[in-house]
This record gives sequence, structure tokens and C-alpha cells, in this order.
Amino acid sequence: MAIITLLTDFGVQDEYVGVLKGAILSADPRAVIVDLCHAVGPQDARQAAWLLRASYCFFPEGSIHMCVVDPGVGTDRKIIAAQCRGHLFLAPDNGLLRPVLDDCATPVIHQVENRSLFRHPVSRTFHGRDIFAPVAAHLSRGLPIRQLGRTLEVKALNILDVTGNPKVSGDSIQGTVVSIDRFGNLITNIAERDIAAFGSVSVVIRLQDHRIVGLSETYAGHAASEPIAIIGSRKCLEIAMNCDSAADRLNVSKGASVLVSADR
Amino acid sequence: MAIITLLTDFGVQDEYVGVLKGAILSADPRAVIVDLCHAVGPQDARQAAWLLRASYCFFPEGSIHMCVVDPGVGTDRKIIAAQCRGHLFLAPDNGLLRPVLDDCATPVIHQVENRSLFRHPVSRTFHGRDIFAPVAAHLSRGLPIRQLGRTLEVKALNILDVTGNPKVSGDSIQGTVVSIDRFGNLITNIAERDIAAFGSVSVVIRLQDHRIVGLSETYAGHAASEPIAIIGSRKCLEIAMNCDSAADRLNVSKGASVLVSADR
Amino acid sequence: MAIITLLTDFGVQDEYVGVLKGAILSADPRAVIVDLCHAVGPQDARQAAWLLRASYCFFPEGSIHMCVVDPGVGTDRKIIAAQCRGHLFLAPDNGLLRPVLDDCATPVIHQVENRSLFRHPVSRTFHGRDIFAPVAAHLSRGLPIRQLGRTLEVKALNILDVTGNPKVSGDSIQGTVVSIDRFGNLITNIAERDIAAFGSVSVVIRLQDHRIVGLSETYAGHAASEPIAIIGSRKCLEIAMNCDSAADRLNVSKGASVLVSADR
Repeated sequence: MAIITLLTDFGVQDEYVGVLKGAILSADPRAVIVDLCHAVGPQDARQAAWLLRASYCFFPEGSIHMCVVDPGVGTDRKIIAAQCRGHLFLAPDNGLLRPVLDDCATPVIHQVENRSLFRHPVSRTFHGRDIFAPVAAHLSRGLPIRQLGRTLEVKALNILDVTGNPKVSGDSIQGTVVSIDRFGNLITNIAERDIAAFGSVSVVIRLQDHRIVGLSETYAGHAASEPIAIIGSRKCLEIAMNCDSAADRLNVSKGASVLVSADR
Repeated sequence: MAIITLLTDFGVQDEYVGVLKGAILSADPRAVIVDLCHAVGPQDARQAAWLLRASYCFFPEGSIHMCVVDPGVGTDRKIIAAQCRGHLFLAPDNGLLRPVLDDCATPVIHQVENRSLFRHPVSRTFHGRDIFAPVAAHLSRGLPIRQLGRTLEVKALNILDVTGNPKVSGDSIQGTVVSIDRFGNLITNIAERDIAAFGSVSVVIRLQDHRIVGLSETYAGHAASEPIAIIGSRKCLEIAMNCDSAADRLNVSKGASVLVSADR
Repeated sequence: MAIITLLTDFGVQDEYVGVLKGAILSADPRAVIVDLCHAVGPQDARQAAWLLRASYCFFPEGSIHMCVVDPGVGTDRKIIAAQCRGHLFLAPDNGLLRPVLDDCATPVIHQVENRSLFRHPVSRTFHGRDIFAPVAAHLSRGLPIRQLGRTLEVKALNILDVTGNPKVSGDSIQGTVVSIDRFGNLITNIAERDIAAFGSVSVVIRLQDHRIVGLSETYAGHAASEPIAIIGSRKCLEIAMNCDSAADRLNVSKGASVLVSADR
């Protein structure tokens, strides 16, 4: 009995997520299914990629992470399965798995092409239901990944523009707001470890016209409408406001630039 | 251990869905509960009806589909249970089950009236919690449907205005946009099989001022802002746009008319 | 195998709820996790408090209710565990549990301070993941509550402004709209039992310029755009409209005053 997590851009306004679960349970009635997130922006494989890397390690080893953000559904884009740090991943070959694979020394990757595992007839508009779901169920029942199809090398995979790593140069890091959470916190792709590499100096964070000196340790304890910088739950830099929405107050959108500098 | 799916118009902003699950688990702690959809428009039994027919068959036989879109809650409207193609359904007698029953040659239908199965006291505002949930749990524990109450004939059930089948006449089909999904795809009630009955001719789709020639096979591969027609995951005609919202771009709402004609 | 319910202000647009579940399942793979509600207003411990009191009793005894509405995360605010009417509760000491505890004659309360049960390193921004989740999992595996930390008295807990009980005086009750549900029903904190204490007289409900005479028994059967008063599923007074949103039609927001008077 394995855990299957679901990461999609389906939202929950339609029947699509429910149908995914039906298709999984039809192939493995004992599967434990967990919604990781269904609110990824439509077709935003990049957002899904960073969300996945920030999340998967909190699930038990052996979990199967099924990721369906797939604008190329029904075309000849590949579907891939990867084994990485004790977890299994299923995703279209559109770069969604790249940040996870970049963190893994020895990923094992297979193409998902064994049609005997699919639900038939296979539609051209809903591979989540007809391919991903039954394949995830087979994996949860113990099918070895190598039975899904041929081995692939990391270098054969698509990268696209998913990775978007921040630019680290000496005493500064140029990053991006990659997500805005429900609290209006501005989540960047600037990693705690890259800031830590500055050593024990103070840091200055610049975002549009705002300048924030130093990192806070908690959201609470700050004056209203004062933006703070904090290392958030993804271990990345966030710009936040105590009991308020930094996104609304500072009028910042996803994609905004953030600059962190050592204040020597 | 059976699967109980939930289809409601409760949304997820309140405690109602959580409480439904508590009430089910109180009566059957081993039930496997799956959210089919909670975003049906308030009181929109018609939307729920089509969503249910498009979805239930992807769950294992023996699943119990509990449908609570119930503007008549607390009145003398009946609650019905139906056995159909190996699945069990619970719903108010407001037409919600009609499309499912129309597809079934020999449905077995019972009125839900055995009060010993209900949660007491039975409120007049939340039969989902007090009647549907415990009855679904009893069914999942193996209670035969006949113990719920008297047998009903299909012809004794309410139809209301739920069915809304498209009008098929010779070389054209007049249908309706019955749902708009998260991607902005316009989902119609025009079935693939009715279009297929035209034979091997090209088809023309008309929607407001727009005219689309032919069916596409995938969402991808089309020019931006070009509407396409495609058979979607419900096996019905959809009007869509590659990586964009057809609903927004074409300014179309639920209820819009769609005409499909054979292009002889 | 226990049920763990989740009540948060996380929403579902981010990975936070999924990660909570991963952290729980990492510590107890057999836990049954149920979403009670994640749409509590950001930092609105008061809304969570009333929602919890209205909901928990519909779950089986032995359930563990994990409540993470926690603006003080990472500060020295306490985290508490309470045993009450056969249920277990985990929450920050910010008043969220007060309405539940007020209904319980002999609550057993412990501080959550046994760090050996936590996930390490413990972040200062996501105690839900690093403290609440693993502690809930340990409880679901049978850990006695006393092993979490020292005993606390009710009177040592924070109350804040969470309780907001209505003012009952002779022949009138002054209450508040504490929640507006998906249907636009205005849910007050005026309990059925307090109205019943008036005896068998008619009641008049006043809300802004509106005056409603008497309680209705069902939503259905009323003229369009006529507001009705009804005892809802929380056993509290609601102002509603048949198949319409009272909130929209009457232009009422959360926090509005409601006066109920005996009409002698």
C-alpha cells in the first residue's frame, strides 16, 4: 500500500480530480491518495516544478508523486517516470521534474510507454485519467519502474524554461517571486543556503521601491504594514507582512524581481 | 469496504463537507470517501446530473455515489436510492439521477424511508448529514438496498428540467454549453456518438458569431486565440483554445447554444 | 487507527495542506485524515473556534482535531492539547479551543512541549508541519496525551476575543453574523436553545432595516427575495433566502448585528 500524491492544474471546480481518483482506485482499491495541490496555474509547469521540489520530501519514502500539468496532452511529448531519493515521480516530459532531478545524484528514469498498463481506449485529452492514474496504481501495487518502458538519460529530457534558478554572484542574489500564497506572502526562489553563503553579515532585500534590512524570524511581532523578509517553509526567502497581505499592500505580482545583497 | 463518492453544491468554504465525512465515518469508520465535486452551482441539480453521468463509470463497481444538491431539503420531496450498472446512487428525487437512469436498462430504485438508519434528531436543513451520510455508510457496510424502503418505478420519479438533451435532426445537432471548466473550455452536451452518426463527413460548429470547421485531436498545436472544437474527456464536444480560455476570449457563458452541422 | 481532522486557514491554493498530510503520514502511515475546513479567514481564530465547536461532535469519539490558525507561529505562544468529551484537540493557545472547552465539564489539558515528538529541525514559520502533524500522528498511534507535556488549567489559557457569546437578556438576544456560507446564508451565534427559552411565543428577528417574523422550518416554499429566519445545521439562527443569497440580496457582511425578540 503506497501513497499517491496528486499535483495538477485541474482546480476543484470540475469533476477531473474526482475522476482521477476513481481511475486510480479502479486499478488499486487500496491506494492512499493525497491531494498535494490542484491550484497550479493552468499549464504552469514551472510553478508545479518548484512546488513539487519544495514538498515531496515531507512524504514517506516510497510515495508516488503523480504530476499532471500537461499542455501537450495527446501530442507526442513523452511521459516519464523517475526514481529519485526513494520517491517515484510521474510527469510529462516538459521540465516539471527538472528541479527534483537536479537535486538527485543518480536518478533512474523510464519512459512510460507500456500500453498494457493504460486504461483503454486512451483519450487524447485526458492522459491523467487514462495513463497517469492506472500507471500510478500499478506502481503502488509494486510494479517495478523498469516495466514501464525504456530507460532515459537525464540529458535526453526536456528542460524548457522551467528551472529559472536565481543568479548568484559574489555578494548578491537576483531572484524572482515564484508564488504568492493565500496569506499574500511573496515566495521567492532564493534559497536560504545561498543567503547563508554570504557569511555572518546583514543582508538587504530590494523589491521594487522597497528596501528591507535583515531577516526576521517570525511573522508576528512586527508593526502593521511593515514588510519583513523571512525564510519560509520552503527554505526560501519570503517577503511578508504580519497579519496582512504583502502582495496586496506592496502591489507585487508573481514574476517580480527580488535582489538580496550582503550589507558589508 | 466500499468507496463513497460525494457530489454536492456545498463548496469547501464551510464545514459542511467535513461534517458529511464525519457523519459517514461515525457509521462506517472503514469507508473510503472520495470527493467527486463540491463546486456544483448552488441548487443546480442539472449541472450535477450531467457531471455525475460523465464521471461515475470511472469508479469501481460497487461504489456508492452520494449526491446532495437539494433545494427541497426538509420538504416532502423523496430521497431515492438506485442500483444501476453495478453502482449505487443516493440523491433527492429532483431529476439529478435522470441521465444516469436513462442509460440503464434495468435500474432498481428504492425510496429512502427507513428512519432507523438515519441520524437522530433529523434536522430539516441538513439531510446530507442526517440521512444521506448514515444511509451511505450502511450501504457501504453491506446493507441491501431493499432495506431502505419501498420500490419505486422510474416513471414515478421527478424529471424536472434536468435532462436537457440536445436536439438531433438529420444533419445537425442543436446543443448547449452545460459547463465551463477551469481551463475555460466550453463543455457541451453534444455527444461524440451523435456526431459520429453523420458518417465520414466534415463538421461545422457554430457558436455565436464563430464558425469552426472540423474537429481537432489535441489542444496543443493550434495558433493562439484560434478556437478549436474537440471531443473532450466527457466524450462530448468542447470548444477550447490552446493554452487559453475560450470562455474568456469568446465571451461565452454556460447556457449558450451550439450548432453542429454535417458539411456535405 | 484514528481519524485526524484538519482545520486551518491555509486555503488550498498552495502546497501547505498537502505537506501537512505528508508529515502526518510520515509518522503514521495508517492515519485517516479528513479535511474539516481550510477556508477559515487568514488568522481568524474566532471563526475557526465557532466552526470547530459546531462540527467536532459529528466525528467518532477518539478523533483528533488538529487546528492550525496560528498568527503567533514561532513566538513563545503555547501549543495545547485537550481531551474533551471523548475527542482530542490540538491548537495554539490563542482562544481557538475556548468554545469547545466551555462546553466540557472536565477537560484535560496539556502543553505540547515534548520536543522528541517533533519533526526536526523545527521551523519558526510552519509549526503545523513540524509540531502539530507529528504530534497528531503520535496521538493517533496511541500515545497518551500526558506524554506531550505538563498539565495546564483552563484558567491559565488565553481567551482573547474569540468567544463573542451573544447577549441574552430577558426577552431578547443580541447576536452577530459569525459566518456567511456558500449559499449566502447568514449564520449567527444565536443558539436555538436560547430562543427556545422564550417559551412558546412568536419571535421577531431584526437585521439592519429588515424585520422577519417567526421561524421557518425549511429553505424551500418561500417567495423569492423574501428573507427567512431558520435554525440551521449548527443549531443556530440563520437568515436565508430560498434559492438565493441573503448576503448578496440584503448586502450584509460578517460581523453584522442581529436582534431576536419575543413577540409577546
